[in-house]
Parts: sequence; structure tokens; C-alpha cells
Amino acid sequence: MCTWKMLTVAMCVALLGCLQAQEPQGHVSIILLGATGDLAKKYLWQGLFQLYLDEAGKGHSFSFHGAALTAPKQGQELMAKALESLSCPKDMAPSHCAEHKDQFLRLSQYRQLKTTEDYRALSKDIEAQIQHEGLREAGRIFYFSVPPFAYADIARNINSSCRPGPGAWLRVALEKPFGHDHLSAQQLATELRSFFQEEEMSRVDHYLGKQAVAQILPFRDQNRKALDSLWNRHHVERVEIVMKETVDAAGRISFYEEYGVIRDVLQNHLTEVLTLVAMELPHNVSNAEAVLRHKLQVFQALRGLQKGSAVVGQYQTYSQQVRRELQKPDSFHSLTPTFAGILVHINNLRWEGVPFILTSGKALDERVSYVRVLFKNRAFCVQSEKHWDAEQSQCLPRQIVFHIGHGDLGGPAVLVSRNLFRPSLPSESWVEMEDRPGLRLFGRPLSDYYAYSPVRERDAYSILLAHIFHCRKDSFITTENLLASWVFWTPVLDSLAHEVPRLYPGGAENGHLLDFEFSGSQLSFSQQQLEQLVPGPGSVPVPSEFQVLRAKYRESPLVSAWPEELISKLADDIEATAVRAVQHFGEFHLALSGGSSPVALFQQLAMGHYGFPWAHTHLWLVDERCVPLSDPESNFQGLQAHLLQHIRVPYYNIHPMPVHLHQRLCAEEDQGTQLYAREISALVTNSSFDLVLLGMGTDGHTASLFPQSPAGLDGEQLVVLTTSPFRPHHRMSLSLPLINRAKKVAVLVMGKMKREITLLVSRVGHEPKKWPISGVLPSSGQLVWYMDYEAFLG
Amino acid sequence: MCTWKMLTVAMCVALLGCLQAQEPQGHVSIILLGATGDLAKKYLWQGLFQLYLDEAGKGHSFSFHGAALTAPKQGQELMAKALESLSCPKDMAPSHCAEHKDQFLRLSQYRQLKTTEDYRALSKDIEAQIQHEGLREAGRIFYFSVPPFAYADIARNINSSCRPGPGAWLRVALEKPFGHDHLSAQQLATELRSFFQEEEMSRVDHYLGKQAVAQILPFRDQNRKALDSLWNRHHVERVEIVMKETVDAAGRISFYEEYGVIRDVLQNHLTEVLTLVAMELPHNVSNAEAVLRHKLQVFQALRGLQKGSAVVGQYQTYSQQVRRELQKPDSFHSLTPTFAGILVHINNLRWEGVPFILTSGKALDERVSYVRVLFKNRAFCVQSEKHWDAEQSQCLPRQIVFHIGHGDLGGPAVLVSRNLFRPSLPSESWVEMEDRPGLRLFGRPLSDYYAYSPVRERDAYSILLAHIFHCRKDSFITTENLLASWVFWTPVLDSLAHEVPRLYPGGAENGHLLDFEFSGSQLSFSQQQLEQLVPGPGSVPVPSEFQVLRAKYRESPLVSAWPEELISKLADDIEATAVRAVQHFGEFHLALSGGSSPVALFQQLAMGHYGFPWAHTHLWLVDERCVPLSDPESNFQGLQAHLLQHIRVPYYNIHPMPVHLHQRLCAEEDQGTQLYAREISALVTNSSFDLVLLGMGTDGHTASLFPQSPAGLDGEQLVVLTTSPFRPHHRMSLSLPLINRAKKVAVLVMGKMKREITLLVSRVGHEPKKWPISGVLPSSGQLVWYMDYEAFLG
Repeated sequence: MCTWKMLTVAMCVALLGCLQAQEPQGHVSIILLGATGDLAKKYLWQGLFQLYLDEAGKGHSFSFHGAALTAPKQGQELMAKALESLSCPKDMAPSHCAEHKDQFLRLSQYRQLKTTEDYRALSKDIEAQIQHEGLREAGRIFYFSVPPFAYADIARNINSSCRPGPGAWLRVALEKPFGHDHLSAQQLATELRSFFQEEEMSRVDHYLGKQAVAQILPFRDQNRKALDSLWNRHHVERVEIVMKETVDAAGRISFYEEYGVIRDVLQNHLTEVLTLVAMELPHNVSNAEAVLRHKLQVFQALRGLQKGSAVVGQYQTYSQQVRRELQKPDSFHSLTPTFAGILVHINNLRWEGVPFILTSGKALDERVSYVRVLFKNRAFCVQSEKHWDAEQSQCLPRQIVFHIGHGDLGGPAVLVSRNLFRPSLPSESWVEMEDRPGLRLFGRPLSDYYAYSPVRERDAYSILLAHIFHCRKDSFITTENLLASWVFWTPVLDSLAHEVPRLYPGGAENGHLLDFEFSGSQLSFSQQQLEQLVPGPGSVPVPSEFQVLRAKYRESPLVSAWPEELISKLADDIEATAVRAVQHFGEFHLALSGGSSPVALFQQLAMGHYGFPWAHTHLWLVDERCVPLSDPESNFQGLQAHLLQHIRVPYYNIHPMPVHLHQRLCAEEDQGTQLYAREISALVTNSSFDLVLLGMGTDGHTASLFPQSPAGLDGEQLVVLTTSPFRPHHRMSLSLPLINRAKKVAVLVMGKMKREITLLVSRVGHEPKKWPISGVLPSSGQLVWYMDYEAFLG
Repeated sequence: MCTWKMLTVAMCVALLGCLQAQEPQGHVSIILLGATGDLAKKYLWQGLFQLYLDEAGKGHSFSFHGAALTAPKQGQELMAKALESLSCPKDMAPSHCAEHKDQFLRLSQYRQLKTTEDYRALSKDIEAQIQHEGLREAGRIFYFSVPPFAYADIARNINSSCRPGPGAWLRVALEKPFGHDHLSAQQLATELRSFFQEEEMSRVDHYLGKQAVAQILPFRDQNRKALDSLWNRHHVERVEIVMKETVDAAGRISFYEEYGVIRDVLQNHLTEVLTLVAMELPHNVSNAEAVLRHKLQVFQALRGLQKGSAVVGQYQTYSQQVRRELQKPDSFHSLTPTFAGILVHINNLRWEGVPFILTSGKALDERVSYVRVLFKNRAFCVQSEKHWDAEQSQCLPRQIVFHIGHGDLGGPAVLVSRNLFRPSLPSESWVEMEDRPGLRLFGRPLSDYYAYSPVRERDAYSILLAHIFHCRKDSFITTENLLASWVFWTPVLDSLAHEVPRLYPGGAENGHLLDFEFSGSQLSFSQQQLEQLVPGPGSVPVPSEFQVLRAKYRESPLVSAWPEELISKLADDIEATAVRAVQHFGEFHLALSGGSSPVALFQQLAMGHYGFPWAHTHLWLVDERCVPLSDPESNFQGLQAHLLQHIRVPYYNIHPMPVHLHQRLCAEEDQGTQLYAREISALVTNSSFDLVLLGMGTDGHTASLFPQSPAGLDGEQLVVLTTSPFRPHHRMSLSLPLINRAKKVAVLVMGKMKREITLLVSRVGHEPKKWPISGVLPSSGQLVWYMDYEAFLG
């Protein structure tokens, strides 16, 4: 089927990779690498046996090759031991079971796979056997149950010496960790791609095989009618994605110390669950390609995490365990988090503003994992709550829980509050649970839910092995998906690298110590920490009792404070000025500078100032770079991102500088400066802004008026084109004479880097050609300097 | 003190009205009109006695005049009866009490006040007595405890014949109802203003005298530090303002049938409470002028109520009671609501999006009134909820309740959840309550709250009488305040006038029948009504099973449906087109018409379409009126209000028509049409919009291309100035040739009024000069007609 000339090799492999599964005939060889390891013993052999039970007799023939580095004889023994405990489904007769086990064992053999020669020999043996039995080869599955450092060698050997012949497919299944951050994941991906086609690889996240997780998309699909109007920011209060463990990391420290809870659980398991909950539901949820595409769209819409999006903790005995297991000195304190809470926001219209809370930790009070979608309470129940009824009252909590495992329920389940709707689940695989009086879940008795559990609990690996076999690509992590996840997680991992986690005693003793809460996109522990057991770097206390300092600078009032207080004071002053202007004149004309200092101010104004008369405020630009308005470098773009999108200034009160006219940037002929000047003259009485906010550069520039550049320092022009020593060089700026007509000018100067120029400018006279900032002196208005302590005191 | 020449009389009166209270000396006469009525017997005499107890001995002397229409002797007897039951504070010794009562009775006398002569006589008597006792007159208080129809006569008589002399003040206290709607309230206000200065009047809303209500502002003030960051949309989940009664209206039907629950309770009591909760807190809450100003600002920010903002009910026996008490025929069914739930939104930055739920009703399951501020749960509690602690867990409900009266608590109280903060209350008047085990309030045991009750419960009237005496104007309803409230309530009252209320059985039997819920600003009962006991007007069932009809119109595809389905289909089609365009070209250019038909479409797009690629969509205008963009008539303004403010289109992707250049509207010389044409050519490939949305006028016009007006029907111009037969006459419009270059044109036609032109246009050929719409025929794009059944089938 791969003979059509127009198909490229890649496409051919892709097709082979997945269409073959529908072919009724052929022999499949499954090679389990790491066949004597823990995972193999615990899950994988059982999964392969299950696959055999499910698939043998449907046209395919199988052989199973356990492989490891161990020498044949010893390996054979170890493998035999691992196979001893294979079990059959409960409903199978013991005699039947014994028969199947015998057959399976006959098809299974151990091989040492070490050298390229070993791989070549395996390939030859498979071919010989197939030929001998008169079969056709359908394909080969290699399951990598080995540490990641072994991947490259094995992959090289498979690619060079153990690929099946033409017409048969190759599939390799890989186990996490898939790298440690974006860079290492990318390197690993590049390496693997030099051996395998994307379609040949199945990266396993066993969470995708958990029954409750695998049910998320089918549930959303089968209950579309009820969920369509509910599954969005208007109705969802929050989504919690939780995996709590009671065990600690003892015995696994060498792995854990390098990874920590975020890499171990959040970056993969919980993130995958997040995408299943949040994605736009494809028309056809069995269309793997659509599912994967929609998953990727979720990653694209994730709002970037910052240090403040996370809280991290570490159980108290962890460092001790690290010292013991890794032979560290007594002075060693680990910073690896064993607990993390993360607040994720999704920037699309469906989810904007809905908190997705991801949390996981070791040494907690219970073992449980679940996704909980809590809906907003939009009802008012007139009757006294004594009379509320679980089926009818819309004031009782409404939630949908995919209970992944453990906890008080003890296994997978799907719960839907009875006051929501009666869900539809596939009756062949899920059944309604019986009530368990006394059992309360998420604030309500079990009887308040429509509760379903699987007809037959199945292990995640057995499900995933079947999906590898049936080529259900949407149950695995594509390279794109993996890298998107690392792109999302790496920055916050980096920024947390030196963060001291909060220590917690473990178990029920944690009390409320790990509770956390969010405000906007900031997450913090609810309780103040009483004592810091591990002294962190840079823990110098900030003197919050330090008062805002009032003084003079260049004979004008100076306000100086720590950055946060300074910004807060400036925002208050701007609001007060705005309120007065609107009271007296009906409008407020505010000219804002670009750059980085005002960002914090914009955020402050956007979030906290409820009384700001935005509807009557006109926003002007002090200066602009000659780039399109939508360019990330544009001052206007900064204003849009940090202020405009949070407040409600009418469109026509916003006045970007016309740097982009007739598809050209700041062309003299387009007369953008005149246009802006005319707009100002027309709308601003006497061209006198109510408030102009300026900054000061380390070279003494202000607005886009630079030293030794004559434009805009004097003369009649209100708006000028100037040249900056920094890129982009071309700028548009209000002129000094126009700035000096303002009723009030505020100059904001922040940061240590400004110390020198601050000192210098404090001593110079009126020399705008050398230091344009020295020319700022409102003719009849007021000038106020706002400097943080670092800029002012160094 | 009113001799300074520069003071106008009004100012002088104003000053007299309120400064006098600080004067230490003088005689005060208090005239209680309706002295033998129910209110007087129940509350007012007791209040006056309390005032006497509190104030006598502080420098003022008093006389109390009970007045009514009853003849002196009989009136005297009735009044004596009313005065019998006066009681002293609990802590006063009985002998002391008897002495005070005696004194009070000696100062009180009955007068018949009927004619102008009676009033003149009263005035003379007061003056004589004062002169006789060598006193100075401080002022006179007239308390109107009479039906409103009697107001005018009494007011005229007081004004003409019973004002105190110069230097003494006049105060009149009025009881609701203050009108029936905005117009009647205005008439009443005008009438009263012809007799009294604003400063002389105190309109009483006794809710403002309830201890818990009067505590709202002081509480907000004294707990500023804790509340400052909490009292806003980021933290408040909802505010419930509730007054539930168990009694019905029997015996008061003649009043009730005319007013109903909204006028009786919501327009006044609950609205006043709302303003106290929502207002920006004045710097000084004792500054009555600032409080009143901030209250008014709340009214200005209220989002207008619509029919959909309310649910109304009526207890089942109400109509029967009306028939009996008002002698109506058996066929009579009242539409007066005895229950209402109202959803109020406040359009300012502090409260935007926070639901304020006002509800009141008779014949409910309990008697209780309260304001409940519920805060958002922003926390994730890691510990299993078994271990949550009321003081510490941020996951338990956090709420502040001003418990106004009755209910399980049985009296006024202020409750603050212990996981919020320990509030500060004035310890001389409020004390911490003792726990009452078993008592649960708002989902939590009483012990979960810091709970305070008044040291001494005081009746609202005794508090308000003291406030009248001390001229605390902020405890009363100013004319401005009253009219603002009616401006807010009248439209919804009008729109509910013919609404059939849901019938409810009363008491505990109401079950969940009256529960309601909101979605956006729409309120609806949670339960479908099983049977409509009173058939309502216009209850023709909408055939929702009716399919969307597909046919041809002028040889192009036609989609026809009921309006809601039609809009929904059109919105879906636009989204699908947008998604495809962005997939293929990275952007989507959509040109939108103004007018009323697209408003529903804009709303639909704004609310339901989460997958719409707004960030990559450019919005253009099909036509515009030559008015400033911010003018309510501007098409752009409609787009802004109904679509732009709900979605996130980047500023620079929005392309309003340049009708307003150089401070002129559509001046040829400003070349606005060329400017827009150049913008289109530059940004839209081949000037071919991805989708143009048009409408069709009853005269066959489309865009702003009108019959018999040559501009824009052919030729090279992409954008033209045109003349409309309707105001405003001057328009800017895309030309037919430009429209016909689009890849897709959708024409939306809705409503019965379009039936005739729809029929006509279906028959005519290509005659754009007569019917511009007939010229719409995309040269290589697709044309689709969207018509609702009324436009298409009549």
C-alpha cells in the first residue's frame, strides 16, 4: 500500500503507523525493553497478557520478547518470576486461565539486548520465525521501560538493525521523564527523531490510561447537550486538578531530588488532564488528529506562569532523606519542592478568568486524585435552607468530578451533582454506584450525586498497551504536545529554582499550613509562615514601616518610597487629579510615556482604582516608536496590554500617535506630527494636558527627546519626529514646549541604574540640549518627581 | 443669624434647617399629624417620648401636639389611650418612669387641625405660650402620619399659617408612599416644594432607622482597613438584600393592590440598603452631604432594569382577597406581585459583574430581613475537609451579614465569618453575642461568626425622630434620591404591568417554586412552571421544533427561521467563516452594518462564541452616519456597546469610518472616503472582504445606499458619501462595487415591517437605482439571505 509514487516516505510511514491496525492479518512482535524492571513486573507484563487475551484470535499472531542487559540465563529466570503473577479477568474460569497463561508463556521469551549485533540477531530471528510459520509481518512494538539515559543507544540500534521489513510498521513506546526542561526535552526529541518518525513514537503518560481520565472527552461528548451551555467561564467557578499522596520520596531520592513534584506530576499528568478538560471539543472525539490539534490550542492559550503563580512546599524530613540517600553533608538543604500549588489561567473566551488549580504533593493527609469542576452558584433560593432538596435546589453546590483514584471512594468514578443533570455514560463500561451512607465527598453526601464507577476496573497500562496496538495516537504525548508543555512549565521552574519551599510536617499535622489562595494571577499561602526553618537567600526584611518621604528635587516636590508604595502613591495622585479634572471640566487628559517603569503603574491603575473616571478620560501618548501599533515594541502595545484591556475607556478617547500612516512609518510627508498636534489642539483646552507622565533615561532623556538632538527642545512645534541612540531609532514625541504647557507633570524614576543620572541631574541647571529632562519645567503647572529609594538614595 | 445680606433666603433657610440643632437653647414644638392613627399608636408616640427622655434637660424645652381631623374631645380621648402604653427603658426605676411619663403627658395636648384657621390658631398658641414662658422659639417639627392624599392641604396650611417666626426652623417629616412611579413622585415633589424648602423636609424610610441598617456605613468606616481590599468585584461573590414576610396582604388590600411588593418594599427599603452597601465610602461618613452625594452616584451607575431582570409571584389566595376586599367580580384576577426577585448590576469598576439580588415577598416560609455579602472563595485547602477549621480555613464560606430583624436570630445583628477578620464595632452600642448551639445561619453554625447585637434594641422610629431633631439629613430620602430611585424602578414596573406572576401556595409549601437564577443579566425561575393557573396574554406557544428553513431567494440561498434561531444560525455561519479565513489567511475581515437588526447578532457573538478568532479579526463598518463616533446615533457606538466591549479585538484591528476629521463631519475636503478606501486597499487583499453583513430597508436601501441617489451604485469609488431620506441625512457607505467584491455577503432581514419589500424585491430584476439591494450580487463570492419568518412569510 505504500507504492503510490506521490506519497513521501514520511507520509507513507505515517499511514503505515496507523492504518495497519485495521488490517486483519499478520504477526506482531512486542519487545519489552527493561523486561525485568519494576514497572514491567508491576504493570507491563500484565498489560501485555491482557492485550494477548483481548487480541489473540482476532487475526493477528503475537510473539513477546522480554529484553534487558542481563545475560540470557539470569534474565530468563528473572523474567519467569515476573510472569508468575499474571492474572486473568475475574470472570474467567481457572482452567481457561491456566490454558491462556500457558499459551502466553510459550509466546514469550527473554533476550539479552546489548549490542547492535543483539538487535540484528533479534530482527533475523523474528523474520525467520515468521517465514517458518508462513506468516506475514504486521509490525513490531518496542516498549522502552528503561531509564532515559539508555534511550539513545537503544533507539539507534532499533533504527539501524531491528526495523521490520517494508510494509510492516514499527512502534516504540517511551516512558517519562521526557527531559528536564524545554531544552533537554528538545534535545531528546531531536535525538529520537533522528531514529524514528513522529508517527512511530508513543510517549506514554499513564494518566491518560486511567479510566476516569480517559472518560473525560467521551463524557463531554456524550453530554454535549447539557454541557454546551455550562462548560465555560460564565458557569464554571473553578477547576481543581489534584493528586495527593501520603507516601514520601524515600528510596527514590536520587530521581526525585533532580525532578521534584512539578516535573514529576504537574508538567505531565496534571497538565494532560487540564487539556482534556479545557480543550474545545472536536466535532468527533474519536478523531485523534482533531483531539491532538485542540489540545495544542489549549497550550497556545495558556497564560504564562510566573513565580507568583506557584506556591511550593517540602516535607520536613526530605532534606534529611536527601543527605542520607545521596551522601550529602549535614549542612545540605534541598530546595526541591515536594508540594506545589499552581494557578493556571487560560486566555481564551471560553475560560478567561476561570482559575484552574493544579496541586500535588507527597506526605499529605490522604492519597487521592481527581479533577473537580465546580460551577458557579447563580441561584437565589427563597426557601429557608432547611428545606433545600439535593435534586432541586440550585443553591447547593453543583459539580462534576472525575475521580481518578484512591481517596474515600477508593477507585475511579464519575460524579455529577443531582441538581445539575443526569449524565449519560456508556452503560457497557460504567454503572451507577450504590450509595454509601456517611460518605461525604466535596462537601456533600455521595447520595447528592449521580455516581458511576467502571464495570471493570482496568489498569492504565493495559489500556495504553491496547491503544498502542490500535494506534490511538490521542492517548499519547506527541513531540509538539510535549514541547508545548515544557515551554509552559520551564519559565516557572527556572524562576522557582532558588525559591525556599515552605516546610511542612507531613500528614494530618499539616493543618492549614499548605492552604493557598489567589488574587488575580498571584498565588500565596493563606497563612503567614511563623518561622523560616531554612534561611533563604535574599531574605532581608523590607522595612514596610518606612514612610513615604517628601522632599525637594530640582526645587520641585519629590515623593520617594519603596517601589510598591511609590507606584501606589503615584496612582492615587493620578486618580485624585483625574477626579478633580472631571468634576471641574468634565474630562481628563492624560499623556502617558512608554517604557518599563510605567507598567507597574498601569497594572495598579487597572486593578485597584474603582473610582477612576475612565469613561471621561482621554489617553494620549507622550512618545512612540516608529513601529506599527501592534508591534510588541510599540509603546501603545504596552498600554493596551497592561491597562486598556482591563478598563473601559471609550474607543474614541484613546489617541495613539499616528506613526503609521499610508502604510509607512513616520514619513515626514504623511504629516503625522501635525495630525497629532491638530488632534491635541482640537480636544485639549489650550493644548494643556491635565497630567503628563514622564520617565528619565540614564542619559537624561525624557519622552523621546534625546541629548544632542535638537528636535522638540524648543520652538513652536507641539509634536516632533526625533532620533534615538537606541533601536528603533525613529521616534515621535511631544515637544518640551508642549509638555511644559501641562497643568501637572509627573516624572517617574525607578531602579538602581538611575542613581547616577539622578545625582547628576540634581546638580545641573537648565540644559535641555545636554539633558533634556532638565528642560522640563511647566510654565504655569506643577512638576512632581516620583523616585524610588534605589534611584534616589542608591 | 440670618441677617448677613449676602445670604439668599434659600441658603438662610438651609442653614437654619440644620445648624440650629447645635444651638443650646430654645423651645421646640412637635406636631404629630395623624396622632390617633396606627403608626402613631404603635411607634411614633413612643418615639417622641424617647426623644423627650433623651433631650429634655439638655437646654431645649418641648411641647407635643397630637393633631387629627377628629373633634377635640373625642380626639383627646383617643390620644390619651395611645399614650397609656408608653414605656421607659428597662433600666429606669419605675418611680422615675412614672414621673417622666407625667411630665411628658403634661407637655402633650390634642388639637383638631382641619382648616387654615386651625393652623393659624395653633401657631398663635405656640407663640403665646413661648412668650408667656419667656422662651425663644427654636423650631417646629410636623410629622405627617397621614395618607398621601392629605399631604397637599396640610402642607399648604403649614406653609401659609403655621411657620415659626424668623430665626426659628421648620421641619416636616413625611411617610411613604412618595408616589407610585416617576411621574407621580415628581408631581408630589413639585407640589411639596411649592410649600417647603428641600432642607425643611425629611422623607422617612423607616429601614434607615433599623439598627443593623444604620450600622452599615459606620461598620464600613470602622473596618476600612480590612474591607478596603475586599469590598469590590474581585472579592465579592454576590450581595443579597432580602425581606421575607410570612403574613399576607389581607386587610391591606386596598393599598397593596395598587402598589405591590416592588413599590412597597424594593423601590424604597431594599434600594436604600443597596446604596449603603454599594456606595463609595466618603472620607468622613458623618458628612451627610457627602453620604447623600455618594448615594446618588450609585443610582447613576445602576444598570437599567429590564423585564428579564425580574421574577414575580403572587400567593394563590391573593386574587380572592382582592375580590373580597375590593368587591371585584369572580372573573377578576389581579396581576399585582406579592413576591419579586430582582437582579441589579452596578456599572462601575468596583461592582461590575457582581450580582445584587433584591428579593421580598409575602406568604413566604419565614419572616426575616438581612443583607448578606458573600465573598468569593479564592482558596484551595489542601487538607481533607474533615480537618477544616472555622477560624482558619479560607475554604469555608466567608460572609458579612447585616441581620436587620426577625428570622432565627430574632433581632438585629452583625455577623462576620471568623475566617475573614475580627470586626470593630462601637462597644458602647454593640456587644458580642453568646453562642446558641444548634443555630445555623447562612450555611454555618453561629459559632463560625463574630456575632454582635445591639446593647439595647431600639425601634427605628425612635432613632429617626432623634435624627430629625438632630438634623441628620443622611438618614432621610432627599428629593433627588427619591426621583433617582423612581427613574430606576419605573421602567421595570411598567414592563411588568401586564406580566402574569407565578402563583405560589404560601409558606413552607412553596418548596423550590420561587427559587430563581441568573444568567448574565437575565433572571428566571429555576423550575419550569407546571401549569399556568391564570392564563396570560400572548401565551401562544412558540413552535421550537420548527426547523430552520432552507430555500432560494433571488436565486441565492435563503435561511429562514424564528428570530432567535436565525440569529444563532447566522452567528454560527459567521464564526465558521472566520475560523476558515484565519486558518487559511491568518486574518478575517468582517464588514458590519449598523441599525437595530444586528444588535441581537452582536450580543449573540459577544456571549456565546468562544471559538471566534477575535484576535485575528478586523472589523470594518459598512456604513456610518455623519456624527461623532461617540454619538449615540453612530453605528460605531452600537458596535462598541453591544460587541466591542465584550470581546477582545486589538485596538488596531478596529476600523471605524473616518466621518469625523479635523473636527468636521464628512467634509468632502477631508477626503474621509479616500482615507477609508486606502485603508481597505492596504489591509484587505484585493479589497475583498471575507464577509459583509448587510441589512435591507423598507425602501429597498442597503448599507447607506439609498434609492434614487446615484452615489456608490457603480463606478470606481470604494467608499462614498451619500444622502439618506432619514435623519441624520449625511452618511458614509461602502459602494456596491466594493460590496460585490466580497467573498461572502450576508443580508439579514427581520420583522413584519419588511414583509412588503421582501415580496417586492423577490420579483424585481437588477435595478439598483430603484432598489439598491437588488444590486447586491458578489462577482465571485457568495450571497446568502437570512430572513426571519415574519419578514419572509409575513
